[in-house]
Amino acid sequence: VDWVGDRPVIIDQTLLPHELRMISLETVDEVIDAIQRLAVRGAPALGVAGALGVALACRLGGDEADVRAGAARIRAARPTAVNLAWAVDRVLARLPDGPDAAVAEAVGLLEADAAINRALSERGADWIQARVAGPMAVQTHCNAGALACVEWGTALGVVRSLHLRRGVREVFADETRPLLQGARLTAYELGEMGVPYRIVVDGAGASMVTRRLVDVVIVGADRIAANGDVANKIGTLPLALAAARVGVPFVVAAPESTIDPATPSGDAIRIEERDGAEVLGASAPAGARAYNPAFDVTPADLVTAIVTQDRIIEPARGDRPA
Amino acid sequence: VDWVGDRPVIIDQTLLPHELRMISLETVDEVIDAIQRLAVRGAPALGVAGALGVALACRLGGDEADVRAGAARIRAARPTAVNLAWAVDRVLARLPDGPDAAVAEAVGLLEADAAINRALSERGADWIQARVAGPMAVQTHCNAGALACVEWGTALGVVRSLHLRRGVREVFADETRPLLQGARLTAYELGEMGVPYRIVVDGAGASMVTRRLVDVVIVGADRIAANGDVANKIGTLPLALAAARVGVPFVVAAPESTIDPATPSGDAIRIEERDGAEVLGASAPAGARAYNPAFDVTPADLVTAIVTQDRIIEPARGDRPA
Repeated sequence: VDWVGDRPVIIDQTLLPHELRMISLETVDEVIDAIQRLAVRGAPALGVAGALGVALACRLGGDEADVRAGAARIRAARPTAVNLAWAVDRVLARLPDGPDAAVAEAVGLLEADAAINRALSERGADWIQARVAGPMAVQTHCNAGALACVEWGTALGVVRSLHLRRGVREVFADETRPLLQGARLTAYELGEMGVPYRIVVDGAGASMVTRRLVDVVIVGADRIAANGDVANKIGTLPLALAAARVGVPFVVAAPESTIDPATPSGDAIRIEERDGAEVLGASAPAGARAYNPAFDVTPADLVTAIVTQDRIIEPARGDRPA
Repeated sequence: VDWVGDRPVIIDQTLLPHELRMISLETVDEVIDAIQRLAVRGAPALGVAGALGVALACRLGGDEADVRAGAARIRAARPTAVNLAWAVDRVLARLPDGPDAAVAEAVGLLEADAAINRALSERGADWIQARVAGPMAVQTHCNAGALACVEWGTALGVVRSLHLRRGVREVFADETRPLLQGARLTAYELGEMGVPYRIVVDGAGASMVTRRLVDVVIVGADRIAANGDVANKIGTLPLALAAARVGVPFVVAAPESTIDPATPSGDAIRIEERDGAEVLGASAPAGARAYNPAFDVTPADLVTAIVTQDRIIEPARGDRPA
């Protein structure tokens, strides 16, 4: 995600790993479309894209009411990742100081992202290396890498930091149905990093953990409730259940902006339901229906550690993020 | 699975749900190929197909050594489902009495399958209805239906029996990557039965349970160890972990022949690893590798009940199958 010529520029993640195409978003509708069809995805990247979308609305002219109307539509484009609403609100808060102030706020969020992710990744790597002997095998789910952020990554940022310390033997990446962010994006990023990896089906992740084929589970988050419950891509919960059973650390890597003090617990997190057609493909019988929740909630007592740029929170030991 | 004109006849399950094609297996090699490429699959169906494969070897002439050599190759075609080895051994045990006796034993196993499944299904439905108010929502994984047997089914047999008692509101079927037995076969069978169903990705099953969107989990098994550990299709374990957490019954439906007294616990079960190409498809980056274990092991303490044609075993309460 970048800001070039007063326009948000994103990598169209739907085309990866086979094509790396940058697209410049010219209208608020294009920003919303890119968010909804997951051309830009990942909680931190959604936050920055939302902020830059509001900046775009400022630069397209129109009065403050127009900008606020566009911002409200961007804010509602996807419901679960709190970073989107958080970043839009951050930019809107500067709007009374004029469009230039709002744009500067958005660009500031963009520029801060890399440093935030690098800081949380180093902190996470420190915490893990103090507890897990290396070189280690890591289980992850979905994509919480550079593609999900501006650069470096959150969960894959921790992997990147561990890898630079020669601390990673192999990563097992859940393919992450229905949209295969693991098989497409995480695999692509790990290949670029030079980290050995294998893809597994989502059903395999839990037994990778209980068979002790992995030493640590590291995932990102879309929203962390005040009590430490974690919403993340559907299929995260099985890894946490398995990890708790056998005492493997389950680590959530996310910026502070993913923690939502206004959400008391996971029960209050709205889980986005997406089109069943994403699940069905060509294999199901004619007339088949699907239920397609995009996220699940991992209860706080299963979360060994939440790693942010500022701190380590240990919900399973009773720590509360907010 | 059937025996027609001294040949095993199977439905080629790789072509479902779009084409219902019967194939007659003319040689031992064709039997082995059908088993290995999952044209015939499901623990009870594998048992019957293996038995009929030995019967075919008898009918193709050759001496007892030839039949035993063919039987050994059939027996080893897939390692995890114990029914295959069990049924082959049952037929071989009659071989000293001549080929007609062996063929009669194989056909006897074929003919007994439907009654066994109907009995275990009625028993399972009774047990569940005594504990879960209906009409209920059921979570299942993979396919343990009529297609996995000769007719009626095991896990889907229980669903069939519950449905005939008007006890089922809806079934949620994990799609069951990588080969989509849920989306292809379970969906097909539920549609034929007239049971309302929706397909979910495998990552969603655990949270279907923890969100209490389902009232009971019912699955089949490929091998049940003496202590009650259950090997079943990869992705079963997450459902059991979730069910134990929230007190939803986790029910395994299988014939007595799936219980293997010679396997003390799940640690001793050989987990088949299949070709990574089944996982990768076209989405992963060039050069990506996959790890593709076909089964996982659910520990006995997570198994609320094992239902067979003869009895109910409650491993989570300390019952041992053998």
